[in-house]
Amino acid sequence: MIVITQPSVTDERIAEIVAQIEQAGVTAHVSRGTDRTVIGIIGQAAPTLAEHLRQLKGVENVIKISKSYKLASRDFHPEDTVIDIKGVRIGGDNLVIMGGPCAVESAAQIDEIARLVKAAGGQVLRGGAFKPRTGPYSFQGVGVEGLQMMREAGEKHGLLTITEVMTPEYVDICAEHADILQVGTRNMQNFDLLRKLGTIQTPVLLKRGFSSTYDEFLNAAEYILAGGNPNVMLCERGIRTFETYTRNTLDLSAIPVLQGLSHLPVISDPSHGTGRRELVEPMAKASVAAGANGLIIEMHTDPDNSMTGDGVQSLFPDQFAGLLKDLERLAPIVGKKFDTKKEQPEAFAVWQR
Amino acid sequence: MIVITQPSVTDERIAEIVAQIEQAGVTAHVSRGTDRTVIGIIGQAAPTLAEHLRQLKGVENVIKISKSYKLASRDFHPEDTVIDIKGVRIGGDNLVIMGGPCAVESAAQIDEIARLVKAAGGQVLRGGAFKPRTGPYSFQGVGVEGLQMMREAGEKHGLLTITEVMTPEYVDICAEHADILQVGTRNMQNFDLLRKLGTIQTPVLLKRGFSSTYDEFLNAAEYILAGGNPNVMLCERGIRTFETYTRNTLDLSAIPVLQGLSHLPVISDPSHGTGRRELVEPMAKASVAAGANGLIIEMHTDPDNSMTGDGVQSLFPDQFAGLLKDLERLAPIVGKKFDTKKEQPEAFAVWQR
Amino acid sequence: MIVITQPSVTDERIAEIVAQIEQAGVTAHVSRGTDRTVIGIIGQAAPTLAEHLRQLKGVENVIKISKSYKLASRDFHPEDTVIDIKGVRIGGDNLVIMGGPCAVESAAQIDEIARLVKAAGGQVLRGGAFKPRTGPYSFQGVGVEGLQMMREAGEKHGLLTITEVMTPEYVDICAEHADILQVGTRNMQNFDLLRKLGTIQTPVLLKRGFSSTYDEFLNAAEYILAGGNPNVMLCERGIRTFETYTRNTLDLSAIPVLQGLSHLPVISDPSHGTGRRELVEPMAKASVAAGANGLIIEMHTDPDNSMTGDGVQSLFPDQFAGLLKDLERLAPIVGKKFDTKKEQPEAFAVWQR
Amino acid sequence: MIVITQPSVTDERIAEIVAQIEQAGVTAHVSRGTDRTVIGIIGQAAPTLAEHLRQLKGVENVIKISKSYKLASRDFHPEDTVIDIKGVRIGGDNLVIMGGPCAVESAAQIDEIARLVKAAGGQVLRGGAFKPRTGPYSFQGVGVEGLQMMREAGEKHGLLTITEVMTPEYVDICAEHADILQVGTRNMQNFDLLRKLGTIQTPVLLKRGFSSTYDEFLNAAEYILAGGNPNVMLCERGIRTFETYTRNTLDLSAIPVLQGLSHLPVISDPSHGTGRRELVEPMAKASVAAGANGLIIEMHTDPDNSMTGDGVQSLFPDQFAGLLKDLERLAPIVGKKFDTKKEQPEAFAVWQR
Repeated sequence: MIVITQPSVTDERIAEIVAQIEQAGVTAHVSRGTDRTVIGIIGQAAPTLAEHLRQLKGVENVIKISKSYKLASRDFHPEDTVIDIKGVRIGGDNLVIMGGPCAVESAAQIDEIARLVKAAGGQVLRGGAFKPRTGPYSFQGVGVEGLQMMREAGEKHGLLTITEVMTPEYVDICAEHADILQVGTRNMQNFDLLRKLGTIQTPVLLKRGFSSTYDEFLNAAEYILAGGNPNVMLCERGIRTFETYTRNTLDLSAIPVLQGLSHLPVISDPSHGTGRRELVEPMAKASVAAGANGLIIEMHTDPDNSMTGDGVQSLFPDQFAGLLKDLERLAPIVGKKFDTKKEQPEAFAVWQR
Repeated sequence: MIVITQPSVTDERIAEIVAQIEQAGVTAHVSRGTDRTVIGIIGQAAPTLAEHLRQLKGVENVIKISKSYKLASRDFHPEDTVIDIKGVRIGGDNLVIMGGPCAVESAAQIDEIARLVKAAGGQVLRGGAFKPRTGPYSFQGVGVEGLQMMREAGEKHGLLTITEVMTPEYVDICAEHADILQVGTRNMQNFDLLRKLGTIQTPVLLKRGFSSTYDEFLNAAEYILAGGNPNVMLCERGIRTFETYTRNTLDLSAIPVLQGLSHLPVISDPSHGTGRRELVEPMAKASVAAGANGLIIEMHTDPDNSMTGDGVQSLFPDQFAGLLKDLERLAPIVGKKFDTKKEQPEAFAVWQR
Repeated sequence: MIVITQPSVTDERIAEIVAQIEQAGVTAHVSRGTDRTVIGIIGQAAPTLAEHLRQLKGVENVIKISKSYKLASRDFHPEDTVIDIKGVRIGGDNLVIMGGPCAVESAAQIDEIARLVKAAGGQVLRGGAFKPRTGPYSFQGVGVEGLQMMREAGEKHGLLTITEVMTPEYVDICAEHADILQVGTRNMQNFDLLRKLGTIQTPVLLKRGFSSTYDEFLNAAEYILAGGNPNVMLCERGIRTFETYTRNTLDLSAIPVLQGLSHLPVISDPSHGTGRRELVEPMAKASVAAGANGLIIEMHTDPDNSMTGDGVQSLFPDQFAGLLKDLERLAPIVGKKFDTKKEQPEAFAVWQR
Repeated sequence: MIVITQPSVTDERIAEIVAQIEQAGVTAHVSRGTDRTVIGIIGQAAPTLAEHLRQLKGVENVIKISKSYKLASRDFHPEDTVIDIKGVRIGGDNLVIMGGPCAVESAAQIDEIARLVKAAGGQVLRGGAFKPRTGPYSFQGVGVEGLQMMREAGEKHGLLTITEVMTPEYVDICAEHADILQVGTRNMQNFDLLRKLGTIQTPVLLKRGFSSTYDEFLNAAEYILAGGNPNVMLCERGIRTFETYTRNTLDLSAIPVLQGLSHLPVISDPSHGTGRRELVEPMAKASVAAGANGLIIEMHTDPDNSMTGDGVQSLFPDQFAGLLKDLERLAPIVGKKFDTKKEQPEAFAVWQR
């Protein structure tokens, strides 16, 4: 951490700032420049010290040199995290494909979609049971029953399942039915939810807030890791920019950036990241080419009549299958393994009834 | 609502789109243009119709002509909403000033600050008992005890109180102690929280999400109104832009825009909106000049040592008092009433013990 | 300037970085931290040194402590710049009002508008003779003839004139006819134009690029100042954000921020900054309350039929006059002088024929 | 085009709006809705009609249904534009690679880099002779001499050349030496420059303004096309967002979006789009996977000592060659042709001395 003083600051003021630093149990190292004085801080400071120092008179700026997250940082965990869920490995050189509808609508719907996801080579079935809606008059989801329908479809067809959890109270029931819990973009800084997810071991797919920086994103992951749950995946799903033609701007640079800063797997969501069906396929390929550890894609058998209105960004089943065929050829070029015909892992067979 | 077709669309396809519209119980009105056909929809459509139509083949765009919110709209409620809390009136031509620390730290601290807020002419005491923190290792607040300290300070000095509520479970306990409940920027679309707040009558100050459009903001307010709580204030507190010198970019156009679109009072937060003490005063004045119905301002007796690190944006007590003196002169120029020497309302005296 | 090394960097690598720094004729000051080493640079470095160091192996970041602009900075010029043009003073505690149409359309139009601007208490007549248009098929302005019409109207009614200049070749002809030259938002980083403006003494109103940071804005001003022209005004005119309801987001914090960082006058443009007539008045008042040294406002006698289509943001003459009456009362509250009835300065009378 | 009225508008007012529309020589088609009336406009209206109507009393909004650009639109030119330059084909199913330094520094430097670009399989040599610099004290380029050095290097090694042109006066001299002229991000709406480029036939690579929408980008291309030059390539090079870790946010969705809206080739610039060397390779691959028709990449033999400071984003020669090898395998998966060993086209041999 570095403290930069204002140009006019007196020697006494500097001495007072130094005193405050040393009171915090760390060492101050003063460099007098032409205009400003710079005070370096050496040692492990309390997390609030930066904020405290920034408030002091005579301080122009406080710059953190070390990152504010530790457990999420590659500095302290150089190897890739690989999360093994019933034999499906997420992270490292594996490419994982999650597919399914925005919302579970009925047992027949989710069963048929699960069959198609599996046939195409996907490993995880996605589907929402509770829907956050930006207007109070929209479809809100089918609830716990939907969780059960999805679990049955996943077990029948040999797919893991992922579903969104929106409040701490629903974490346990969702974790009972799904293999992966998804935190939506609007909940990335719902700290109560993050803390609750830190107390369990179920893998979490944490979506980037649509206006969150990489630093804020990794700090949100740190909340879950710090609670004791090491099984976190990061998901880039588009950010808000001035461009409104696409629903969001899918920030693919996030993939190599996050993989550089962190050891956690990075998943891309080209469906929500673009909001337009015709862009899903090129952006899915681009995500894999950029190094993504996986994709989460909306697919629907009848997108024109999806209940959530997200059909506009859902692939048709044949588009989904065609895309996975292309990804099978693309993956090895970027050092990833993906096989649409792969036998399901043994653990899977045991688990599947 | 208007449906715009793709250029190449056939007559049969148009007929199918029209059939879907009429199935929804509304009337379709077809205009064939040079390139594209436009289908106007007349009547009260279900809220999901737009999303459904956008998914159809041959549809290029669906444009909503009417707003998606009703209760929050001035179209349906032309007069200003004025919320009366123990005789303090918020909305219309009243200017209300809310002041206090970011976080309640001790009984003595909040009592002294309450005294200073009242002496300067403020009407509401602000203070956080639970703090949302972007990193897992920061100060998290003093909890329920803080609510009690703040209520006592408010009652003693004749001030209303406002505090942030972050989860549905805390709504009741917060409402028991505070006169106004604040929803923070990260919770603007926490729909469970909004729904819970719709079930009570305690006034709510809803902060704009830092990346939310006016439309999303008013839809969030609609959630609370639709639940049955008409006492909602909107609060502009800065949005995220490419400029990082200020913590946020305080969007003062939001004040006249929201007052035009809605009848709800609009409060400005120049403290969080700038994140820098030296900007609070000019932006507070600018907010009132733009027509704000009130301000919420951080003030601290010892900002250099505030526990949250938000001291960097807190005014000193004399700055706060000087600002209110200036606002007293500024208010009448923009048709607002504000009197730093005003006797407390009678209802207040009754209520105050 | 501070160099921050990567965590893993060796002592030899640090020695090489230090050698590169000392080769540049400045002193290096090494502080070894727990994770990273910080190298402070003391002395006046060449402007390209930061970029050079950032490229070196082992360097994680280079942070500039001093600002990249000097002539525009208040650090080196503590008193406000006041530009005196024929007795009209811009900067310091003066409030200057510039009004007029987006484009000069005819001699009669500009004469009538000049009369109204003067009658309302304005000091400067604005009007465009050449229009930058975002589409190739739009109205492009009336050219040099328009400059003459505007000058005549200004002289007749005792107003200074301001017009936009878009290319270096037009600087001389525009400077011959107008008292102030305006650089539009899209030209803020047109370095050839800035350099040319540095070679004359005619005052320049430099508009902020709609996606430019404060730092970039002040560096653009520095270009003109470095060329030898000290008469520069900064103009906040709205930035591009995710919100599209307003044409731009008028960033009023820019006013106190720029006045803190720089000694140059800061003008606000609430017309282009909002793009909506009903917002001009509140945002004009807010600008003055935030401390603006002046305003530039579009006013038109027949906005419904303006040739540029910017009528949608132009005030009617009576709105303009009413606004100036209010500003006369508002100005003294924020320490500014403005008098709608003020006699024109003597220099003006001489100059006026 | 559609006009939407305000809710309260009278029948007379509607009749007046209709009269204004018919006066413009087009047909009005009135649909009365529950709240608002919608007036459709049928026929080819003058480009300024929308702006005119938006200014009228009683009008709430005017929505353009047809696009404001025609020549750039795929609606009117369904097949891909393929630009043939001395036998190198840009557009359609060809992948073109442009590589070279940010700035030409010396004849020896550019010759050596040209050799390496050719050896790696690139077809175009990039290099700047004039540099736009955001601060007035930075390196400004070597000028016309640099153009000559680059042309000689290109001819010797069998590469096309591309260089940036910044003002209309330099168009002719640049076109004399280079095969492709580049318009930089800050000049995307420099309309004088665009108009001048419309008068020649030299191909133009137009970079997206870093805060420009797709619509503005295509309108800028329209300027050049409308002038008579059909040889335009669009270049995505990153937009400004709230994220500052990367210099810009490379918006890869722009590639399929622009290819859908327009027939012009789309090139990606992962060097400026990220500003960090370690991100160039993954984002180059992602660009091709998203369907880009080409890439423009900075490569330097000694990036640590580049004169512009852009070395931080330049690839080393072996990284560049390795990337092109990977692209050779990736291209066919997305239907593109790219061969690092391809014999130079015959036309090239003739032209090369």
